[in-house]
Parts: sequence; structure tokens; C-alpha cells
Amino acid sequence: MGNYRLLEKAGRPGGLDSLDSKQLVRLCREIRAALIEGVSRSGGHLASNLGVVELTVAIHRIFDSPIDQILWDVGHQCYTHKLLTGRLKDLHTLRRMGGIGGFPRPDESIHDAFIAGHASTALSAACGLIRGKELAGEPGHVVAVVGDGALTGGMAYEGLNNLAQNKNGKAIVILNDNKMSISKNVGGLTRHLTFLRTNASYYKLKDATKHALGSIPYLGGPVVGAVGSSLALVKNFIYQSDFFENLGYHYMGPVDGHDLTALQEALARAKSLNRPVLLHVETIKGKGYGFAESNPGAYHGVSSFDPKTGGDARPASDSFSDVFGRTLTRLAEEDGRICAVTAAMKRATGLGHFSARFGKDGRFFDVGIAEGHAVTFSAGLAAKGLKPVLAVFSTFLQRGYDQLIHDCAIEPKDIVLAVDRAGLVGEDGETHQGIFDAAYLTGVPGLQIYSPATYRELEHCIAEAICQPGISAVRYPRGGQPTYLPEYTFDRLDPVHLDCGDNILIVSYGRIFEQVSLAHKALSERGVNASLLKLTKIWPLEEKALAIARAHKTVLFVEEGIRSGGVGEHMIASLALGGYKGKLGLRAIDNRFVPAGSVPEQMKLLGLDAASLADWVLEACE
Amino acid sequence: MGNYRLLEKAGRPGGLDSLDSKQLVRLCREIRAALIEGVSRSGGHLASNLGVVELTVAIHRIFDSPIDQILWDVGHQCYTHKLLTGRLKDLHTLRRMGGIGGFPRPDESIHDAFIAGHASTALSAACGLIRGKELAGEPGHVVAVVGDGALTGGMAYEGLNNLAQNKNGKAIVILNDNKMSISKNVGGLTRHLTFLRTNASYYKLKDATKHALGSIPYLGGPVVGAVGSSLALVKNFIYQSDFFENLGYHYMGPVDGHDLTALQEALARAKSLNRPVLLHVETIKGKGYGFAESNPGAYHGVSSFDPKTGGDARPASDSFSDVFGRTLTRLAEEDGRICAVTAAMKRATGLGHFSARFGKDGRFFDVGIAEGHAVTFSAGLAAKGLKPVLAVFSTFLQRGYDQLIHDCAIEPKDIVLAVDRAGLVGEDGETHQGIFDAAYLTGVPGLQIYSPATYRELEHCIAEAICQPGISAVRYPRGGQPTYLPEYTFDRLDPVHLDCGDNILIVSYGRIFEQVSLAHKALSERGVNASLLKLTKIWPLEEKALAIARAHKTVLFVEEGIRSGGVGEHMIASLALGGYKGKLGLRAIDNRFVPAGSVPEQMKLLGLDAASLADWVLEACE
Repeated sequence: MGNYRLLEKAGRPGGLDSLDSKQLVRLCREIRAALIEGVSRSGGHLASNLGVVELTVAIHRIFDSPIDQILWDVGHQCYTHKLLTGRLKDLHTLRRMGGIGGFPRPDESIHDAFIAGHASTALSAACGLIRGKELAGEPGHVVAVVGDGALTGGMAYEGLNNLAQNKNGKAIVILNDNKMSISKNVGGLTRHLTFLRTNASYYKLKDATKHALGSIPYLGGPVVGAVGSSLALVKNFIYQSDFFENLGYHYMGPVDGHDLTALQEALARAKSLNRPVLLHVETIKGKGYGFAESNPGAYHGVSSFDPKTGGDARPASDSFSDVFGRTLTRLAEEDGRICAVTAAMKRATGLGHFSARFGKDGRFFDVGIAEGHAVTFSAGLAAKGLKPVLAVFSTFLQRGYDQLIHDCAIEPKDIVLAVDRAGLVGEDGETHQGIFDAAYLTGVPGLQIYSPATYRELEHCIAEAICQPGISAVRYPRGGQPTYLPEYTFDRLDPVHLDCGDNILIVSYGRIFEQVSLAHKALSERGVNASLLKLTKIWPLEEKALAIARAHKTVLFVEEGIRSGGVGEHMIASLALGGYKGKLGLRAIDNRFVPAGSVPEQMKLLGLDAASLADWVLEACE
Repeated sequence: MGNYRLLEKAGRPGGLDSLDSKQLVRLCREIRAALIEGVSRSGGHLASNLGVVELTVAIHRIFDSPIDQILWDVGHQCYTHKLLTGRLKDLHTLRRMGGIGGFPRPDESIHDAFIAGHASTALSAACGLIRGKELAGEPGHVVAVVGDGALTGGMAYEGLNNLAQNKNGKAIVILNDNKMSISKNVGGLTRHLTFLRTNASYYKLKDATKHALGSIPYLGGPVVGAVGSSLALVKNFIYQSDFFENLGYHYMGPVDGHDLTALQEALARAKSLNRPVLLHVETIKGKGYGFAESNPGAYHGVSSFDPKTGGDARPASDSFSDVFGRTLTRLAEEDGRICAVTAAMKRATGLGHFSARFGKDGRFFDVGIAEGHAVTFSAGLAAKGLKPVLAVFSTFLQRGYDQLIHDCAIEPKDIVLAVDRAGLVGEDGETHQGIFDAAYLTGVPGLQIYSPATYRELEHCIAEAICQPGISAVRYPRGGQPTYLPEYTFDRLDPVHLDCGDNILIVSYGRIFEQVSLAHKALSERGVNASLLKLTKIWPLEEKALAIARAHKTVLFVEEGIRSGGVGEHMIASLALGGYKGKLGLRAIDNRFVPAGSVPEQMKLLGLDAASLADWVLEACE
């Protein structure tokens, strides 16, 4: 890592308070350099972190963590917070197994007040922490930083609505308004925020007047010098948002999120008030790194890259998301009823091309970070005879579980769920693993699930799912298709049976079948011949697959998903209930979460890599 | 049923339009009489339906269902709508098996535009219907009636935010503001609605002026006479809500929701505008029935009752909810860290007493209809060392599924979920069945589940759960404990084994164990002696229970819940994976929803009643 002298100092207890205003500006430069260096090596969230450097510094100047508790909604903008709380030395381990996480993690640091990863949760957590502090008689504020994108999530409103009831004045909501969610933001509220930004505000007037008024120190200690003028104390902010005021907040802003002085003033004022405050801060996503500033969407979440050119250090390669997007676009050319829906993930789910092609016809819908709405909205489209395809990450579809049951399944709607990032997701870690979908989806009556292992299979599955009545989920992993493909083709929806005799059968589906195949190869080389069964339509269980299983003396199931309620358990229970008397085995993710790391590391940790699987099969043969 | 001459007429196509304004007033009286008669016989939602009689009549006067589509959020206020769309003749079948449902059901009538039952879904569904109509080139408006209570649900905001983007002006949101959710409403938005209500509004001024201005007909056809003055046309409503305006709506109101003329005027005006409208209507829950008006909470959902006295026709009896509330209050006297959280269900979850006792100490929290928030808020409390107990219906906890995983389980929080209405719920039907919780909760790593069958067991379970680390769910059914209790005691948390030999073992848990016991008794009388195993801690599976099962030649599992991913499937898979070679059987709710009816009827439908179970066991013995 580079030389970050001021950052090293600022990351020590009390270190930040000792810096003067010029040093703070240099500190922010160092932080940006560290962020770019760190993320270019390990991958991660870049643009969002570059946008909140000054804001994070200002928060840590005015508030005293961990007595004051700082919550980062979504959490992918917490890197500067981590650097300022003693974790510069661990930056090279960012998002690596055993290293520091890319999201706030209370088990990593006392300064990480609450877990985050999914959007719109911070205000609800803040409510709990505030009430808990009150009841426990603990001092300190709770500061929740929420993006404008996360405000489109209903849970953020539930939190805003309840937090407003807090009368002790210890709750401060910072709206980090970068005018976009992960991609372009949507909806009525966005319009309102635009209105607030584009109307005369105190801080925009202030630049012209502050030199005339001079500096009136109002804070004790070393912070004074850096704060500058205190117009905030002598006069109220002239612009008011009735929207937030109506909900019970004292609205302040908008403040320039890259003006350290203005930020510190505003935060100090917010801290001094004895009522719930909403401080509206305007930031620029990607700030200070030209490539990211001009294309923040592309630099939202990145792989490792060359910081000099901004380019991806790894060769561009296709992904399941890309293939999904292309396939859907092609099918939509032929069938005018096909629509696509995303919850703020147009780019990541591969829908960019679909959007460009069909957006003007009103067949593409980005509903913001609002998965529950997305599910029921899709059901409404289906009720009018359209064929909605909702592209959503497995982990985020958890937000629409009730809506799937209530609005889509009871009176069945013809909907396709394109469940991206199903299975292990790698470096994003625990909060983002797509390991629950097979379990929670198989419990929904009438639903069917496909789990392709290759691009060609994905194409077939999408085409098939669109023709099916009721809810059809097509789940596929993050990234590209497996590199090791056995000779027999993978491009059918029927179960694929590699018959090597009736002693042992290994059953699996989706990406993990690559590891199963590798294990199978290794076993063959050691003289152990197992048969293989690969499922593509994984739910409901197909009689053809069950019949193949019943013909074997030992059936072993391998699943890249949670064990309890997964497809493996269903198949084993089904075999046992049908009178199967052979030996049964199941390897899946058993009653645990999976930490950050590379996918191969995670597979190894879980005993799902080829070598572990081969050992497991050998044991089962004994 | 009584004589409802006008209502019969109004329920026929075109019938409502032919009535004059005096007849409309009499119609509303008839509707109220029919509602009281119907609900007093069959039970159901009374107060909410009495509150929207005029509003529903006015909507059907101004809009033309099914070309215009009317959505009822939550849906428990749709009875008048059902009466006005040809279902008076079926009122005696309300909420009965094979009868008309207590919620909107598209499979019941073309006038029920979308399924409802859970709160806050209508605006999202409306978005889908509007966009679908546009794409399909269908005419007509979409009218969504949303209560102020449902507006505390985040999904309603997601819907509001997205619906505001609809530019074709065919979406009309009616805010049915009765100043309460199911019980007293909460939060910042409630404060704002109160502000709107208590400030000068057009319709409150109007009473004094309308006679002076006289009547200016502006609608064609037979509606004209009933509309009265058209002030709405000549001048804008003088009060504006910036809150809704900021979100992109034209705000109108508040309007007296029991003034037919004012309602029709406002609706006609809303229909004539070419932009999204939010019409704020003030109604009185329970209107027109003194008992309900003075105590709307008690008449929200009722059993059959004597309409003359307003009293419950059935003797007051204890319920699991009552026992839970008393137990928690007792435990909270001893442990100051215990808090209770509810999502707008204080009364129904039995927390009234707790609230009265500990509300002043800040240990009771009603967060509004906001289950996702409730879960994460509880996690925040737990992070500060408190012991939150979230009392929530099984079906509504589905809304907090992601929050359970993300905010409570990854970094484990000590939280108790008091899962009320677990299992079959009877007359509320498909949308409210608590049949998924065992499946979706057993997939969450580290979670434990208790399922008491009696009040004493419930007391033990709650006390035990509060001492456990991590998430503990205690699930119990609607209503009272079983009346048939075998001799051996039910008051332990350990598995209860009634040993009648090692041939057949029937395993079960919770309320359905009564049916299992009755089947067992009937079988004994026929000379078939099965052993019984009753679980109280149902997850994780206890080794003790598995050992008992392994000692039997046949193991049959009975579960009042969804089969896929339920405890029965887990136990069967576990036995099979452990090498069990005996016969296995599982009876549960298999890949289907369960319609309204009495719980005994539902059990029979599912083959879960004692007689069906006895037959099933006999078959398994063959």
C-alpha cells in the first residue's frame, strides 16, 4: 500500500481531531488515493465510497464513535469509515476471506454499529438503538446515513415514520443525495429531491456571503479552527422541505457534501438540536476519480482494475446476466407481451440492452430499490395479460417473499423470476449470498424452478419459463459459466444422466455440477465409477429423476444452497417416503452463513469443492 | 336475511345509477343493516365495512366496474363492494367454505380487480394494472382505496412513489382516513394526517356555503341529481398537502366520507383530471352502529354476535394470545430488559395488558403496519442488551423474512418471535393461513422454534425462549387450546412419548396433535396400537426425538403446515440420511392453499382431521 501519513494519524483514537482544516483537505486526498488503490486491487464498491469521503470525515469530527453510533445504510459506502477507525492496515484484506468486509460488521469493529448490506434498513436499526440507549441509560447520538436510492425502499419510510416519534433528539438522519441509486433513480420522491436541490438553498447562498460575515467559533476543542463561519447558528436554513417536515423532521439542507466546513457546521447544528433532524447532503458519486465521476454506474461495484487507465484488469467476459439480457431481448422481439422489471439493477441484471430497445415502448420498468413492490407490480402486469420477467438478485428477492405468496401464488399469475446471483456470490459475503432461494421458493405452492448450469441452458430455461403458467423462477449464478464441461451436452431441460453403473449416483444442479463433475473425474482416475445426475428443472421434482435415483444403491446429493428446505432434502425425503432403502447422503450449506472470499474459497470452506466432494463420496462408499 | 329492496336493485347492472339522492341515503341504511345482519351471523370485519358504505356507493356511482378497476387495500372493507356487485344473495355464505370470501377475490367476481388480504399492496397492484391497461390499450381508471393504517406500511410508499410516475392520469388513490389502523395509528405520517384534518379544508367550509351557491349539474346521465353543488369544479380545493403534492399527486381533501354528495363530486373531479390524484376521505370506523362506533377496535374483526346487544354470542373464552400476553407481562415484571413489539396488532396479539402496564416505561412499541421495520427495530433493541419479543401473526411475519435473515441472524440477535395465528386460521382464508412459518423459519441459520399445544406449554415456551441466545420463535394457533387432552401431561418442553410398542409411531406437534390423539384413540378402539410422539421444541430436531423414531418400524409424521420444507420433511430426511430403513409417511399441506371455512372443515379438507388420519394410519399399516 502507498504512504498515507495523515490517514494513519487520523485512524488512531483522537487523531482526527488534531488535524487543522488544511490537513483535513489533504487527508481527504489521501483517503481517495487509498480507496482507489485498495479497490483497484481487491475489487469492491468504488464510486459510492469516493462520494462520501468528506461526509465521513465530517461525521467523525463532530461525533464520537462508538458512544455516538454511526449507521451506513446499504453499507457499501463505509470504506472511509473503516479507514478512520483503525482499519487502514487491513485495507489490503478488503473483501477477502478472513479480511475486513466490504460492509459494516459489528463483529469486526466496535465502530460498526449495525450490520448492513441490503438497502433501507438503517433507520429501523437506528430506532432500535435509540430506544435501547434510552432504556439502558446510555449517552450518545445515532447517526444514520441513507442514500436517496435507499429512500425508494419502503422499509426506509417505515423507519422514517417511526424514528420521527423519537422525542429525545438523539437521532440524526443524513440523506446522502447523489441523485442516483445504483443506477438512475426513479419515482415521485426523486422528483421532490430534484426540486429541493434546484431551489435556492442556504448553502448555495452562503459561498458568496461567508467571507463578509467572518468566522464565529462555536465549538470547543481542536475542531473550532476547521469549522469556519457559523451562519448555521445565527440563522435558520432558509429552505424547508415540507415533505420531511411533515413527517416530523427538522429539515436542513441541501449542503454541499464535499465542503468540509459546511458539513461540520451543519452536523454540529444538527447535534445541538433536541429533535429529529434530516440533513440533506449533496454528493457526487465517484468524486475525485475522473473515470468514476463520469461513469459512476460502471464504478459502483467493480472487479480489480488498473487505476491509471480505469480499465478492467481482467479480460472482459460474458456472464449469465449478459446472456439472460440478450435472450430476453430476443424473445421480446417475437412476443410483444414480454416486459422486464428490475428493482434498481438494470445494469447488474443485464437489462441494459432490453431497456434501450423496449424502454420507449413502455416495456421496461425500473421501480427503484423496492423488491416487494416489484413483485406485486409484476403480478398486476400479469393480471392484464402481459408476461413480466422480474430480474432480481436471489438475496434481494427475499424482500418479496410475502408478495410472491400473497399476490402471485394464491391466484396464480404468469410471472418469470430471473433470479440472478443465486448460490455463492464471493466477496460481498454473508449479506449477499444467494443461498436461500431454493428453500424459500420450493415452499410456495405452484411455483416451478429452473437452475441452468450453462449459458445455453439458461437460454432454454428462460424460453421455457415464459411459456409456463404460474410463477417460474430461473436461478443462475454470478459471473460466467463453468470452464470445465464434461463431454455430454448440457443444453437440455431434461435430467442428464451419465450412467456409470448402479452403485453410486451423485445428483446435483446448477454451477456446482462443475465441481461434482471434477470430483467424478478424479474418482474415475482412482477407479471409483459413480453415475451422475444433473437436474435443470429442479422443482417440482421430476419423476424421471426420482426413477433414476431409485435404481441406484447409494444416492448422494450436492447442493450449493442452504440444506434445510433445499432441493436435496426434498429429494431425499421423497425417495425415503417412496420406500427407497438404499444409502442416502446430502452435502449442502448446513445451518450457517458464508463469509466473504472468492467463490472457490467458499466452496472449499463448505466442503463443496471437487476435492472435498471426492473424499466425501469415497467415505460414502465404505 | 332481511328485506333489502333497494340493495337488491342496486346490486343489479345499472341499478345503482337509477337511484335518486334520497334513495341513495336509504340504500346506505339498508347496506348497514345487511352488514350488521351478515357479520353478526358469520363473523368477519364489521367496523371497517361500516365506515366505507357511502364511499363505496359513491365510487360505484362515478366509476364503471369492471372497466374501471377498484382495488381495496387489505381488503377487509370490501363487503359493500360485494353487495353492490351482485353478491347480496351470497351474504349468508360470507367467509364460509365454498361461500364468498371476506376479502376481494378475482376468482369470485370480475369486479374484484385484485386479491387482497395483507396490507399496503393495492398501490403496487394498481401500478401494474395501469401499465398493463396502457400496453393492452384497455380503457378505464384504476381506483385504489387505501387506509391511513396501511400507509404506515413501506410497500404503500413504494407503490405511491411509483404510481406517481404514471402520466396518463388514470390512477386515483383514495386515502380512507379513519384515524386508526386496526388499533390506534402511529408515526410521523399520522401526525401529518391529523394536521390535514384539523386545518381548514374546502369541504368543511362548504357546508355553510353550498345552499347559497345552489346546484350546478355537471355530470351527464342519471347521476346529475345526486351530485348537488359543483363547487369542486369552479374552484380548487383550498387546502393542499405538500406531502402528497411533493410525491407528485394532486391532493384533494379532506372530504367527509359520509357525505354522498361531496364524495361523488370529489370523485367526479378526480376522474376528470389528467394526473395522479390523491383524494383524502375522512370516515368513521363503525359508522352507524353505536357499539362499533364507540369501540371500533373491538369490532374490527368479530365472531358471530347478537346485533341487539352488540355482545359476543359465544361465551368469552381464553385464547393462546391472551395467555401469551399474561405470561409476557408476568415475565416482564421480573426482567426489566423484556420489551414487547407489535405491528399494529396490540389487541389481537394479546398485548393490551402489557401495553397498559409497561407502556409508560417505554417498553411497549406499536410500530404500525410495518413488519419489516418491526423485525429490524427489534434487532436494534437487542443490540443494546434488551430482550425484545415481537408478537406477530405467522402470515404477516412473511413480510419480515429478509430482515430476519439479514438483520437478526447473520450477527445473531437475542429476539423472541411470538408467532400468533400459526397453522390454519379458519374464515379469513387463503391470504391469512399461518402455514408457511415452519418452512421459512427452519431455513434461517441458528433459529430455534417451539410449538406449544396447550396454554401451559406456551407459558413454558415463552419463558424458555426469552433465555435462549439467538432468534427463538414460539408459534401457536388462533383461538383456544384443544378440548381433547389425553391423560399424559403436555406441560414439558421435552418430547412426549406415549409408548404403545415399536410398530408404528405417529409424530406431530402443536394443535394438530389433538387430532392425532383422537385418531390414536379411535385406532386403539379398533385394536390398532400406535405409539405417539409429540414435539414441543420442533427445531432444530432433537436427538432424543430422532432416537425414539428410529426405534419404530413405521414412522408417520403429521403437520399442520406446508409440506415442502416443513418439520416433517426435515425429520424424514434426517432419519433417511441416518440410515433408517423402516417405513415413512408424511401428511401435511401439500403444494396448495387452503380456502376459508372453519378450522375443522379445513382439517377435513386436508385429510388432517382425526377420522382421515386414522384411515391413513390404517393404510400405512397394510
